[in-house]
Amino acid sequence: MEPMPTVPRSEIEMRVRALQERARAADPPLDALLVVQNADLYYLAGTVQTAHLLLPATGEPRLLVRKVLERARRDSPLGDIRPLGSLKELPAQLREVCGAPPWRLGMELDVLTVNLHRAYARIFGEDAEILDASPAILGARAVKSDWEVSRLREAAEIHRGLFLELGEILRGGFEGSSYELQSLLEYRARLLGHCGIIRMRGLNVETALGLVVSGRDGVVPSYSMFPIGGEGPHPWVAQGGGSRPLQRDTPIIVDFLASREGYHADCTRMAVMGRFPDGAAELLAGLRRLLRFCEESARPGAVPAEIYAAVRERAAAAGLAAGFMGPAGYQVRFIGHGVGLEVNETPVLAPRFDEPLVPGNTLAIEPKFTHPEWGVIGLENTYVVRGDGVENLTPFAEEVIG
Amino acid sequence: MEPMPTVPRSEIEMRVRALQERARAADPPLDALLVVQNADLYYLAGTVQTAHLLLPATGEPRLLVRKVLERARRDSPLGDIRPLGSLKELPAQLREVCGAPPWRLGMELDVLTVNLHRAYARIFGEDAEILDASPAILGARAVKSDWEVSRLREAAEIHRGLFLELGEILRGGFEGSSYELQSLLEYRARLLGHCGIIRMRGLNVETALGLVVSGRDGVVPSYSMFPIGGEGPHPWVAQGGGSRPLQRDTPIIVDFLASREGYHADCTRMAVMGRFPDGAAELLAGLRRLLRFCEESARPGAVPAEIYAAVRERAAAAGLAAGFMGPAGYQVRFIGHGVGLEVNETPVLAPRFDEPLVPGNTLAIEPKFTHPEWGVIGLENTYVVRGDGVENLTPFAEEVIG
Repeated sequence: MEPMPTVPRSEIEMRVRALQERARAADPPLDALLVVQNADLYYLAGTVQTAHLLLPATGEPRLLVRKVLERARRDSPLGDIRPLGSLKELPAQLREVCGAPPWRLGMELDVLTVNLHRAYARIFGEDAEILDASPAILGARAVKSDWEVSRLREAAEIHRGLFLELGEILRGGFEGSSYELQSLLEYRARLLGHCGIIRMRGLNVETALGLVVSGRDGVVPSYSMFPIGGEGPHPWVAQGGGSRPLQRDTPIIVDFLASREGYHADCTRMAVMGRFPDGAAELLAGLRRLLRFCEESARPGAVPAEIYAAVRERAAAAGLAAGFMGPAGYQVRFIGHGVGLEVNETPVLAPRFDEPLVPGNTLAIEPKFTHPEWGVIGLENTYVVRGDGVENLTPFAEEVIG
Repeated sequence: MEPMPTVPRSEIEMRVRALQERARAADPPLDALLVVQNADLYYLAGTVQTAHLLLPATGEPRLLVRKVLERARRDSPLGDIRPLGSLKELPAQLREVCGAPPWRLGMELDVLTVNLHRAYARIFGEDAEILDASPAILGARAVKSDWEVSRLREAAEIHRGLFLELGEILRGGFEGSSYELQSLLEYRARLLGHCGIIRMRGLNVETALGLVVSGRDGVVPSYSMFPIGGEGPHPWVAQGGGSRPLQRDTPIIVDFLASREGYHADCTRMAVMGRFPDGAAELLAGLRRLLRFCEESARPGAVPAEIYAAVRERAAAAGLAAGFMGPAGYQVRFIGHGVGLEVNETPVLAPRFDEPLVPGNTLAIEPKFTHPEWGVIGLENTYVVRGDGVENLTPFAEEVIG
């Protein structure tokens, strides 16, 4: 097999060390982590092959691969990669990297299912106490390296191309539904280098590559955690583009997740066929001012919950309280979220997120407003927190496309 | 909101009764089920809005909706649909539908995360013992009604259209990679009515709408549970179509999941630009004979594990042992799987599945072979088990497309 570039060895080493520090600093301290989820495996080993990563609190990690060993060895820069015939071998492997039991073993209890957890608990028996390692893992992942930021910036190039194509499509006169435009943009995004899948964390958490919603269709609230609703193609999907034909002179919101090799950039622009309504343009200008305010506020040391509260206050002062971040009664309670190998990462600009921002945090900031006539109006850029403020990784024209 | 058709009331009532019987017959018997996962919610309530379904072992179910109540009321034919303000209200709600505690409460422990389980356990405290309801739910879901079978048949019409378009695309001369053809077919499938998402059950279980793999690219083994490998667009995805241009006179395998409104049909056909190699055609004829054998074997009373063993024996006798169901060393150990609202349902034609087939079981049967030169060769149809044998729900020409 030809080698393929995934994650450089120096990145993996840095991540492993950072996570080991967090494991040792956890309360109680963890003796080792056993990592099984795809995004976490990719983060720490550079591969999503079916594998267990044994990460002792000190010393070298060991990747135990059930399937496919050769691909894991090709993808991953880790030095110690071995086959795993059966889960029953795990205690002996842990003893080799970590010394004699008892062990405090960290696993991803935010995604591990109850039945899998019970299977691991049976295998380790009295020798291991299984604790939640997800705060340590997600905390480490929340601070991006320059290499990671470059991956987000490259992913955002898909947005640049997609928005150009979107303008051509709309000026050519698109005859179809919002769901069909959404499907076309998903296809074009793949031709522009999108790897084709989106990873999000948690039970029942799902999304398409992007959402295209127009006019009053956007007033329909969604069950999801997103500030954009929409009918969706069917109650089974129940979000995003629906089956009604797109209308002229009606705002279209296009919220897309770009990913070339795992790292997501998240960006939203408005579009229209024909003329964008004056009132909607004013609304958009107000939301853009809120976005500028967020850009100025999100700097190292700033507290996410406080930024959120301040943005809400500004929105209210600008007369934007009623449909801010969703239709009345269904407003989501955040204004931005971390983004990386998964879409729903930390930090979140939301209540109760009290840990101050640090350089390397990413934020997809998305002021959106649901208007009874025009539907969802809004903008979104993906930023990285730098030493002196934020850098916009999606620095594309914010004008209405079309 | 306009009403949208989801699941008829009579279907929901039948499902609720069947599951209540299983709950009462479980060991130990369950007093109630608390259902939270999207596919299970849709099955039992006809909606995927964020909700909890309280299903007592006798009496009427109650749907408790966190978001969006109006959509749940529009989608679902259930009679008792109420808002749920907080998870803390669940014990009082359970008491209303189920009587006084203690309760044996069934939840979906095959998909519920450890942290969510702990949150529910805290809320119910000593009053409830939380047991695994997934065998009862998946057992009930494994037996499809005629209404459900019709949904699969309708989904399969997407395949019919897609394979016709595929022939046109290939005869027109497709200049692109297998990943680009896969992306084009995903787009065309959505235009043909595909709802755009695929639901599969379990941690790390993911798939695109379909896979397109050609020639030696298919020899690359995959980490997934599928019998088709492939490079994929990047190690982050690591399955399916890759970036090399499709070659003439080289077999292309096209395995697609069709879904209009949740129910999946699963179908695979071979395709080619130019001439399909004679040897590959012979191989395909051998696999087709195995598929015919499966069709004859899969009848009520037949044991899935025995069908699997007999097929393996026939494959070996036909000289097809080496690459049967995957490249040597990476062969998957099944020949068919149940399919419905999720892709990886029961029954499975595989070792240890000893419960005899019954009418209403669905089976996507997919004899496939990985050849070092031609890549993956194979076929797949989706069937329903009837009283006297199987009915093919994907009765499309099995000839090579192109």
